[in-house]
Amino acid sequence: MIYITRKEQFSASHLLANAELTAEENLELFGKCNNLHGHNYYLEVTVCGTPDTKSGYVMDLKYLKDIITEEIIGKVDHRFLNEIEMFRNVIPTTENMAMVFWKILSDRVQTGNAQLYSVKIYETEKNFVLYKGGL
Amino acid sequence: MIYITRKEQFSASHLLANAELTAEENLELFGKCNNLHGHNYYLEVTVCGTPDTKSGYVMDLKYLKDIITEEIIGKVDHRFLNEIEMFRNVIPTTENMAMVFWKILSDRVQTGNAQLYSVKIYETEKNFVLYKGGL
Amino acid sequence: MIYITRKEQFSASHLLANAELTAEENLELFGKCNNLHGHNYYLEVTVCGTPDTKSGYVMDLKYLKDIITEEIIGKVDHRFLNEIEMFRNVIPTTENMAMVFWKILSDRVQTGNAQLYSVKIYETEKNFVLYKGGL
Amino acid sequence: MIYITRKEQFSASHLLANAELTAEENLELFGKCNNLHGHNYYLEVTVCGTPDTKSGYVMDLKYLKDIITEEIIGKVDHRFLNEIEMFRNVIPTTENMAMVFWKILSDRVQTGNAQLYSVKIYETEKNFVLYKGGL
Amino acid sequence: MIYITRKEQFSASHLLANAELTAEENLELFGKCNNLHGHNYYLEVTVCGTPDTKSGYVMDLKYLKDIITEEIIGKVDHRFLNEIEMFRNVIPTTENMAMVFWKILSDRVQTGNAQLYSVKIYETEKNFVLYKGGL
Amino acid sequence: MIYITRKEQFSASHLLANAELTAEENLELFGKCNNLHGHNYYLEVTVCGTPDTKSGYVMDLKYLKDIITEEIIGKVDHRFLNEIEMFRNVIPTTENMAMVFWKILSDRVQTGNAQLYSVKIYETEKNFVLYKGGL
Repeated sequence: MIYITRKEQFSASHLLANAELTAEENLELFGKCNNLHGHNYYLEVTVCGTPDTKSGYVMDLKYLKDIITEEIIGKVDHRFLNEIEMFRNVIPTTENMAMVFWKILSDRVQTGNAQLYSVKIYETEKNFVLYKGGL
Repeated sequence: MIYITRKEQFSASHLLANAELTAEENLELFGKCNNLHGHNYYLEVTVCGTPDTKSGYVMDLKYLKDIITEEIIGKVDHRFLNEIEMFRNVIPTTENMAMVFWKILSDRVQTGNAQLYSVKIYETEKNFVLYKGGL
Repeated sequence: MIYITRKEQFSASHLLANAELTAEENLELFGKCNNLHGHNYYLEVTVCGTPDTKSGYVMDLKYLKDIITEEIIGKVDHRFLNEIEMFRNVIPTTENMAMVFWKILSDRVQTGNAQLYSVKIYETEKNFVLYKGGL
Repeated sequence: MIYITRKEQFSASHLLANAELTAEENLELFGKCNNLHGHNYYLEVTVCGTPDTKSGYVMDLKYLKDIITEEIIGKVDHRFLNEIEMFRNVIPTTENMAMVFWKILSDRVQTGNAQLYSVKIYETEKNFVLYKGGL
Repeated sequence: MIYITRKEQFSASHLLANAELTAEENLELFGKCNNLHGHNYYLEVTVCGTPDTKSGYVMDLKYLKDIITEEIIGKVDHRFLNEIEMFRNVIPTTENMAMVFWKILSDRVQTGNAQLYSVKIYETEKNFVLYKGGL
Repeated sequence: MIYITRKEQFSASHLLANAELTAEENLELFGKCNNLHGHNYYLEVTVCGTPDTKSGYVMDLKYLKDIITEEIIGKVDHRFLNEIEMFRNVIPTTENMAMVFWKILSDRVQTGNAQLYSVKIYETEKNFVLYKGGL
């Protein structure tokens, strides 16, 4: 197996709150992340497979870039995550974002010789999350 | 002169809109930046002066860090910039943010042998602004 | 499983020497690393688990940051590693540092749904070490 | 197991083309990558093993650096990859480069307590490839 | 004055040679840079001026991005610099590239309240050049 | 004028103390920087001048690299700064280091068409100092 990765960036706002909790409970649980704030997120999508003998590519990274742009970046960049359809009923923690992105991308990147391996999201350079599917 | 710099980070949300324009005019003028979104901002505050003979410092960068934290980071990190007092009647473009931060910091960092030289803000790694006072 | 990471930085000095070797043997074995020198180390602590349904977190990264700060950063930042209790009888190579930090953190980060997955240390941007336990 | 990594950089030119295809087919398949262009590549070579009790090293990273420099960097830095012996009959995609480098390094880094674990190549900061052997 | 910067990236190949010198003289003068090789270049274009009162912008960085893309990136990305029209009779050292880009951009970014201030090019992260006009 | 920069890295240990003060006074003045610790320093040396018509270089950056390596890196890398001859009677704050390096480099990089413009030192990614001569 070879693992190839495409990295993209988007800027978005969010706040963390559980709709079933009171304002006081949410502030207690999420602290300053309960405030409306935002990030420059970095998204790394990794696909694994075997190189195609004709091209020497596992997958053309321009093709992977186009899928990520169409399915993810175009919908979350310069947006308020809590009001986007893909996060309806989902608290936009980085963990949940990785799982939502995985579900969206998994079928789209599947080809004869390659499949989605992982989704990694950097919320800041100090905080990041990796998901490889399976939950 | 020696120029010393302290770099800090904060995560905030904002949207760009001129209160005197209509919603359509703001969308036309600011495009996707008119949407509620956010960034991990990097702030570089540069002080210039001569090294103190006793310490060999122009200024203790821990002291500069404390000023920046108290005056800026503590007020903008994990916040919605448009609703913060320092941006009342100010569109929070990176240019205006640099000018507002300059006004706040200028007196605070003035010492016998040192003074504020510049405020630099990275909105993203691709977009940044430098202000040296004087407007 | 989801893997969440918190990255912290510390600045420390060290020198590499095996107490059972002569000065000449240590210089031969460790070269310039046998001299007293130092680094800005970056430490990445990764915890894996399942997101809590109430918070959407595997673990609050602020909680993880507090543990790392209390157990590691507070003890090694701006210190001479060879004279710190945790490196008594341990040559402070990056490999050994990762193993020592793992032992310190392993129990502390264990919760109902999460556990320590790896400790990664960058000695410089060109030299880094990853440890996942088990030795 | 402990995983230790050495990162090196080289600047090279290449173009992607399959010798069995026509000029039109290559342009269709590879797009702008069919043009003669170049990159600052970053190469991360990871070795895994157990620390030597005498030195506390899995492997002296200076020794690993010397192998990488001799076997790889000295042959590809400031060169046109398509004309280098190691890429004879190989399209120099990042995937193929990782596999070629693996074959070259695998025996060289093998020692009593350590072996090659992975080769990672960044073609740009947005596009990178990881190979762990086995194809 | 406020200084705003847009950073873009391009990947290109080049070789350094003076057409008036022999092959031996060029190899002596330029060393390994006389070989065909390539880089991921980073280009930072800085414009200075006063913020527009309506928008709070010195210049919309999306507008600056479009100019840079049209005038520079679209012409040099994934290309062999020595064969591009803008480098006809110009050795593509980083110094000369900065001067050529300055001439191309200077008029295009001139507006009522803003003008080109500097062009900065990173050939690698260790080698970079800044030009502010005037030669 | 064109400004060209070469960036180098070194790892060193130091502690801040004024020999004329007591241990208590030094601890009070320098805080944790009074402890023996260390850093991965980044040094950026900028030379300004006009490009040579034959080479298109202000100065061959390989030549500048060799000077920096010989005069600075070879003397400070993997060393304890307080015991190096160039810091005899100088507290190794980043400010003082920049001034000492300037004095060492200024004559060495002077050529017919180029001269030293600035010395910049990053002690950490958050703390850095710039010196342009004149004190």
